[in-house]
Amino acid sequence: MKVGVIGGGAIGLLVASYLHEQYDVTIYTRRQEQADLLNRQKLRLIKHGNEQNIPVRAIPFGWERVEADLLFITVKQYDLAHVIEQWNEWSETATLIFLQNGMGHIRLLSQLKQRNVVIGVVEHGALKRDDRTVEHTGIGKITLSLFQGQFGRLKRLLNASIPDFPIGYEEDWYGMLTKKLVVNALVNPLTAVLRVRNGELLNVHEYKEMMRLLFTEVCAALALSNGEEAWEHIVRICEKTANNRSSMLSDLEQGRKTEIEAILGYVMEKGNERNIPTPLCQFLFHAVKGMEGRDWNE
Amino acid sequence: MKVGVIGGGAIGLLVASYLHEQYDVTIYTRRQEQADLLNRQKLRLIKHGNEQNIPVRAIPFGWERVEADLLFITVKQYDLAHVIEQWNEWSETATLIFLQNGMGHIRLLSQLKQRNVVIGVVEHGALKRDDRTVEHTGIGKITLSLFQGQFGRLKRLLNASIPDFPIGYEEDWYGMLTKKLVVNALVNPLTAVLRVRNGELLNVHEYKEMMRLLFTEVCAALALSNGEEAWEHIVRICEKTANNRSSMLSDLEQGRKTEIEAILGYVMEKGNERNIPTPLCQFLFHAVKGMEGRDWNE
Repeated sequence: MKVGVIGGGAIGLLVASYLHEQYDVTIYTRRQEQADLLNRQKLRLIKHGNEQNIPVRAIPFGWERVEADLLFITVKQYDLAHVIEQWNEWSETATLIFLQNGMGHIRLLSQLKQRNVVIGVVEHGALKRDDRTVEHTGIGKITLSLFQGQFGRLKRLLNASIPDFPIGYEEDWYGMLTKKLVVNALVNPLTAVLRVRNGELLNVHEYKEMMRLLFTEVCAALALSNGEEAWEHIVRICEKTANNRSSMLSDLEQGRKTEIEAILGYVMEKGNERNIPTPLCQFLFHAVKGMEGRDWNE
Repeated sequence: MKVGVIGGGAIGLLVASYLHEQYDVTIYTRRQEQADLLNRQKLRLIKHGNEQNIPVRAIPFGWERVEADLLFITVKQYDLAHVIEQWNEWSETATLIFLQNGMGHIRLLSQLKQRNVVIGVVEHGALKRDDRTVEHTGIGKITLSLFQGQFGRLKRLLNASIPDFPIGYEEDWYGMLTKKLVVNALVNPLTAVLRVRNGELLNVHEYKEMMRLLFTEVCAALALSNGEEAWEHIVRICEKTANNRSSMLSDLEQGRKTEIEAILGYVMEKGNERNIPTPLCQFLFHAVKGMEGRDWNE
């Protein structure tokens, strides 16, 4: 079975690392240099301090027609519109698996007529060390949910049981994404603005108060019914990832663009539609946008 | 004329430096070591890179009755309750001049029956370098306003015209304090949480948006009528002090307690009385309280 992975970021490299053993994997990168490096020096996976060098095929995205049974689209939400424009160049029978954060990508998927589309939520910790190296910093799972069409050959993957790379299934894609969105909407901006690891949102009493205030606003904007359950879920995630720096904090530290639009931007939009004010979301949205591209240590 | 200064912080040392030439000045310090150092090594004023060593008298606060015609109370708002308890030990004819930030101290002044009480607002930049050294980093002014009783011998000071230390007068103490409070409520918490100099609140478009959101909320909570005028005032202050680190940012950087209660705490209280929600104030209040006493560079 042919597996394609669009995007050579942390998640793209992680997916390629774990699927390579059972499948024929091709990575589609944005830059030719990264493809060259991966072809020449192999893909390196670091886990528990051990290195593994994995032979993969890599091609710059757009150079040739994408032939795949399963196609993982792992680019960030803000690059997705550009990638999705080329869906005509992807083999018609491929099952498309979208692994973006937030909710901003859902509206783009309507362009994909008569395709098999699956949405996934990634709960692994993964850091891209360099263009060919990914470190698996936290073993989690990927949960998939059918958005339209059929699972197709993806079914095999659900039964594959790859060690340290479990793949689960969830019936309700909207509920699944929303649950992840709420975690992202709280943990990401708060850790980024306060410049702390995830666990500090629980350890520092006042930060937990901030998270609670933001949570109340986000729940109202998204019209969440299962408030306390969602809160417990967030607390568990913070405990489990206490020592991690969130992706948004890392993005800002590294001077990269964040995914704030797909996360808080979506919450604000939903609030707006429902006439629910979202002052804290707006405030944090501006804070993160203002911090993007500024020197972190000035 | 005898001038007493309670508090050996930046403002206390600054006031003592400038009044010493014309008046007989005594500084009342919290710690004996500071009084000893000031008596032994003199008070040092740094301005434009030049040093001046000024002979002053210093006594630990509480050791003896305070004999003064004018008594400047310069301790931070959160130390004021303790200081004010001893007002019986201050000479009855003294005019008391309170130079705290925020509004939290006003309710304490009701304890001072039949005293001459004046409130002042300080717009100087001053940094305490060590226990005997203050740097005058920004020449501004002090504005005084009568709270109760009479100006008494303070009138002389209004006509003194001391170079680099102008003293102005304002009829409406409430309006004067509110104007300063709004500046403090915006510039202090925002610069502290974003970790930027005052000017960045104007330079970074998104930070200015945050300031505007917070301004709207503070205006509503305080029922300010002259909104645009207040906003222009804040913008001017940020421009004039663009290169300064706010006192709250400095406090957090140095691991000191901030004056957040007297500033945002007061705004939240006023909002509460008027049934105006203040989510941004609450959020920033928690952020600053959470940051107090934490390692800034962890």
